[in-house]
Amino acid sequence: MSKVRLFVDHPLGAGQTVPLDRDQAHYLFGVMRLGPGAVLSLFNGQDGEWDAEVTEAAKRRGTLTCIAQTRPLQEPPDLWLLFAPIKKARTDFIVEKATEMGARRICPVLTEFTNSERVRVDRLQAHAVEAAEQCGGTYVPEVAEPVKLDRLLDGWDPARALMFCDETRIGAADDLPDTLRAPTAILIGPEGGFSPRERDRLRGMDCATGVSLGPRILRADTAAVAALTLWQNAHGDW
Amino acid sequence: MSKVRLFVDHPLGAGQTVPLDRDQAHYLFGVMRLGPGAVLSLFNGQDGEWDAEVTEAAKRRGTLTCIAQTRPLQEPPDLWLLFAPIKKARTDFIVEKATEMGARRICPVLTEFTNSERVRVDRLQAHAVEAAEQCGGTYVPEVAEPVKLDRLLDGWDPARALMFCDETRIGAADDLPDTLRAPTAILIGPEGGFSPRERDRLRGMDCATGVSLGPRILRADTAAVAALTLWQNAHGDW
Repeated sequence: MSKVRLFVDHPLGAGQTVPLDRDQAHYLFGVMRLGPGAVLSLFNGQDGEWDAEVTEAAKRRGTLTCIAQTRPLQEPPDLWLLFAPIKKARTDFIVEKATEMGARRICPVLTEFTNSERVRVDRLQAHAVEAAEQCGGTYVPEVAEPVKLDRLLDGWDPARALMFCDETRIGAADDLPDTLRAPTAILIGPEGGFSPRERDRLRGMDCATGVSLGPRILRADTAAVAALTLWQNAHGDW
Repeated sequence: MSKVRLFVDHPLGAGQTVPLDRDQAHYLFGVMRLGPGAVLSLFNGQDGEWDAEVTEAAKRRGTLTCIAQTRPLQEPPDLWLLFAPIKKARTDFIVEKATEMGARRICPVLTEFTNSERVRVDRLQAHAVEAAEQCGGTYVPEVAEPVKLDRLLDGWDPARALMFCDETRIGAADDLPDTLRAPTAILIGPEGGFSPRERDRLRGMDCATGVSLGPRILRADTAAVAALTLWQNAHGDW
């Protein structure tokens, strides 16, 4: 059995005690059946991964005490994933996948052809935490508030490369150009693609590069994993 | 609005009539509201993509007549995806993703640490058809009957390279070796990984290569897309 991993929003360090809230106590003691003396893994996105011992276990609260650091913090490369939100389940998947794949920041982007405008950032952030617990990461990407594409591009820092998945370039796969080194943001369009105006605007940006993802039209969640794979393999932490 | 795409298990050719079964008639006439004279796209995995016209529309049946071929058959490269089945929803996702990513054959593999042994191949095949309809492919990968890993390796054709995702190689990402050119099979292990015995057996095969997918532990469905991306980008049809 592998050790339970838990994200906590609390400083970690040798001898540091970590109070548990009601949900955490229920998960560790009710669901996972840990008791006093049990050892689990903690991370908080800043201090690496720590072994910690259950030093108090009650129904609605508890305390953990850090023993020793087991891994240093591994920040992912400076890679953002920008995506047009889609159906709820697939949006959840995109956040999960982006966390596993090592994006540092995840930002829902509203484009002209984006249908779903309701995005619950707190729920998506919870998915990122869960994915980080699951994949052994020591870092949790921030899920940003949704932003309109035009507004995002208005304020774009030209020092950050922008890799957008361009379905009109279908079949023209190239190696990723060196201009796409970190910092980079990957932009995945909505199911209907970018509007012609949006595509023109992206193509007109010096820091932006359109990339093909093969001869078939990928769903947004597939495209997100594929694009993150290409970038991580070429320039990232793989 | 983009044209409706439908997979049919029937020969396609100029002037060819295609009878519809009850489900197809319900989908086209009831759900998509097509009527006589409407034009849609057909493919059967063999004869490319055809424009066809509705020439008879009834509640439980109908007839389409092929007009002209719009695209030739595009067979994907000779790439198989072998995966240990996981929870139902994620197994469905793997089949959908493998179809979009251009695998030619999809085969569930039962390993020592595979928990879920119930696989409904007909349901998975239907998912592959739906994904092909959606992604604009002209080819539908075959979903094979589940097979035990040992039995699969007993009869392995050494002319087919085997790329297995080896989580013990974490962090050691390399370019894919040239030995992984088609024909290749990608093998994704179960959530608990391969057993030590299975890993030793795979490592002992001349045609097999272990590949790392970065420093985090990917879920099986994420790993499938990532591995297919690496292969398609290096040696496939992207």
